[in-house]
Amino acid sequence: MDSDALVSCGAMMLGFVADYWRSLEARPVVPNVKPGYLRQLLPTEAPEQPEPFQSIVDDLESTIMVGVTHWHSPRFHAYFPTAASYPAICADILSGGIACIGFSWIASPACTELEGIVMDWLAKAMDLPEFFLSTGNGGGIIQGTASEATIVALLAARSRIFTEKKAEDSTLTLGRLLDQLVVYCSDQAHSSVDKGALIVGCQIRKISSGPDCVMRGEQLEAAIAEDRKKGLIPFFIVATLGTTATCAFDDLMSVGRVCEKEHIWMHIDAAYAGNAFICPEYRHLLNGIEYAESFNFNPHKWMLVNFDCSAMYLKDRKHFIDAFNVDPLYLQHEYQSSAPDYRHWQIPLGRRFRSLKLWFVFRSFGLDGLRKYIRKHIQLAEYFISLISKDARFEIIFPAPQLGLVCFRLKDGSNELNKSLFDALNNDKRIYLVSANVKEKYILRFAVCSSLTEEKHIESSWNVIDEVATKLLSS
Amino acid sequence: MDSDALVSCGAMMLGFVADYWRSLEARPVVPNVKPGYLRQLLPTEAPEQPEPFQSIVDDLESTIMVGVTHWHSPRFHAYFPTAASYPAICADILSGGIACIGFSWIASPACTELEGIVMDWLAKAMDLPEFFLSTGNGGGIIQGTASEATIVALLAARSRIFTEKKAEDSTLTLGRLLDQLVVYCSDQAHSSVDKGALIVGCQIRKISSGPDCVMRGEQLEAAIAEDRKKGLIPFFIVATLGTTATCAFDDLMSVGRVCEKEHIWMHIDAAYAGNAFICPEYRHLLNGIEYAESFNFNPHKWMLVNFDCSAMYLKDRKHFIDAFNVDPLYLQHEYQSSAPDYRHWQIPLGRRFRSLKLWFVFRSFGLDGLRKYIRKHIQLAEYFISLISKDARFEIIFPAPQLGLVCFRLKDGSNELNKSLFDALNNDKRIYLVSANVKEKYILRFAVCSSLTEEKHIESSWNVIDEVATKLLSS
Repeated sequence: MDSDALVSCGAMMLGFVADYWRSLEARPVVPNVKPGYLRQLLPTEAPEQPEPFQSIVDDLESTIMVGVTHWHSPRFHAYFPTAASYPAICADILSGGIACIGFSWIASPACTELEGIVMDWLAKAMDLPEFFLSTGNGGGIIQGTASEATIVALLAARSRIFTEKKAEDSTLTLGRLLDQLVVYCSDQAHSSVDKGALIVGCQIRKISSGPDCVMRGEQLEAAIAEDRKKGLIPFFIVATLGTTATCAFDDLMSVGRVCEKEHIWMHIDAAYAGNAFICPEYRHLLNGIEYAESFNFNPHKWMLVNFDCSAMYLKDRKHFIDAFNVDPLYLQHEYQSSAPDYRHWQIPLGRRFRSLKLWFVFRSFGLDGLRKYIRKHIQLAEYFISLISKDARFEIIFPAPQLGLVCFRLKDGSNELNKSLFDALNNDKRIYLVSANVKEKYILRFAVCSSLTEEKHIESSWNVIDEVATKLLSS
Repeated sequence: MDSDALVSCGAMMLGFVADYWRSLEARPVVPNVKPGYLRQLLPTEAPEQPEPFQSIVDDLESTIMVGVTHWHSPRFHAYFPTAASYPAICADILSGGIACIGFSWIASPACTELEGIVMDWLAKAMDLPEFFLSTGNGGGIIQGTASEATIVALLAARSRIFTEKKAEDSTLTLGRLLDQLVVYCSDQAHSSVDKGALIVGCQIRKISSGPDCVMRGEQLEAAIAEDRKKGLIPFFIVATLGTTATCAFDDLMSVGRVCEKEHIWMHIDAAYAGNAFICPEYRHLLNGIEYAESFNFNPHKWMLVNFDCSAMYLKDRKHFIDAFNVDPLYLQHEYQSSAPDYRHWQIPLGRRFRSLKLWFVFRSFGLDGLRKYIRKHIQLAEYFISLISKDARFEIIFPAPQLGLVCFRLKDGSNELNKSLFDALNNDKRIYLVSANVKEKYILRFAVCSSLTEEKHIESSWNVIDEVATKLLSS
């Protein structure tokens, strides 16, 4: 490491990023490039000799930035938000500078300890059940993504059920068990649940959600009964709080009661919506979490912590350690029993010092500041609703607690017409959103994503939708 | 994002990290803290109100840094190196500033495209077979860790064999197949292979390596024949180049030929050693790679790219896409067929703009600079060998192409005595290394890890070993 170069080149980079954010409003949200564009601009081989840092910076605009989709443009309304803030970036500088690999306590005690502490802070800020605190049998861990959290929970649940069934029948093999295991989730759950089941090797059954996209215990219970009759073994359920398509909330209380009664592992995926639970007025949406074995949401979506920072809580860490423990001598150390070794709670061995990001963000904004941030996005979504509601051509879909997402469509339009509206908006390129198929309806999703978004941007995005729809409907 | 705060706070952070690196030599390599130390220093709850950034920086030394194991201390000789460099940290600033989630091409074209390009650069720099280039059916992807690369390869191999076996017997279930599948690796392979087999749910068989810790085709072939006789299905082998304990290299040619003959997927894990293959004089160690279906090594170990950056190459991306493809509408886009969507090549959905790190490092050091860096570490390891060789009390274990790792022990000492030496060095705390059990011998591992390491540090570390051993042997 060249300390002087770090300071000078780092300052150039910070200046570049600062200017980038100042210019975000003026940039087209989606780049105007075709696949393969960058290969035409860059050499086919790595340089033999070093180049000055300035020449890299000089190239950025014409090579990289022209091909970036600007997730932080105030006109970016696609997917869900991803977070970015100066304290998180500063924490990443420190993490990169310390550059330790915290796979065990001894490999960098501060890395393990800070993670435990800030995950407890976060749990308390959301009023999570005490069993999720590190002071009990559970605890929090930062995973990379909600996908990984789902898989980790799935593997722990598989390990638990295998241990239990094996105790009843010592000839049982994992493969024989796997052919019987069933994972459940709502038909609105994220594709990562499918991917998880695919990886773990068991079948998945989607529970029909109601017309409001909410999965309820009744339908789940019926499916479980049916499957048990077939000789299958229900063992794992993902309940979603804030589905991807419409931000619907599964009915945690009724689903949780079924899980308790049926001895099924309930994992809660609240990737986006979970962030709102730091606001007391949304905390009730989490009622029923006391039935969960594991819970996950992404501060990297909506809590100003840069990707990756997926907060996962375990009720009983034993199941995770059982599922993952492989412990060679070169990783053992004398404090193994007195401090958590997060390597047994996750898929990879190596891990960065990600808790610094959470720590820096908590301290720089305070819980008060984070709540204000969440509430502002929700108010902006409500503002969008107020605008679109005045236009009789549109209808809002599933208006439940929508948080920062609004789903809408042309009221009397066919799916084809709505698809045409979506295509027209995409071709127009002034705003960026994505669509979804929900309950046989083609809908458009409008998410408030950027920390730069203000009412004027919501107005201007709405004006684009209005204008493009008017043109489409009159053609 | 507050651009002004980013510039000012970021500069403070860069200054802190620069000073940290300047002070590294003076710091004790392993912290003098006990589990739970940090909880006594930090509040039990997150702050309600924002704090000035300066107060975070003011706290760093007394809370975080006192609990850090300094992986970049020139006296850190444990595990394998982890990389850190100013261009990589600068690239991470940019990645954090752009803060896009590149799960599909359209989600940020530059993110996908740069990754394909720099992974091709890297492949060419190592003279990898052409089928690993993105211009053919294969391609490179940045995974988080070698563990994830192994699992991804395993899942693709499982998908391939399931498709094949299912074509022969349409009643075959995945569970029935899994009970028959066998993964092979050397008894010297990394624990992540065990973890991978555990996750994927199939059995693992360790092949006895020779006295030189090298796995050879002959032993592998015998094990396969035995297993086939039992009705098992060998389907996946991890060949290791540079094992964790002693940096041994499996005999790729003979192992590869067995894989070809037996139609078994060969995955190469060269996590640490792979970096050396950019130097022509080590490239021959990779002969036999033409038999591999997948290959992985970690630029984040030894190529000056900060964690995480694990370079994985696939011979035929179809197997990966088959294994992982779940494709909901909200992630589809019009360019799907003309550009790779890396989400189908990995476990998580989300991904950071990690290719910037590789790009910045390639350009800042040039291939020439990277080769010099690798060679310097190897020379320093040779220098350590020259010092320890003069001392008749010690023997060097497995001196093959050791790269930057030297394994040694007290020649006429029992395992217990060598364990005592290790414990004494650990208690002494002036240097940090780890031990391993190899071929029933307890050995000590001395790895050259830091970019700050010079001959004088090797001398001083050797002096510590000499001194501690002398004291131990005279007691």
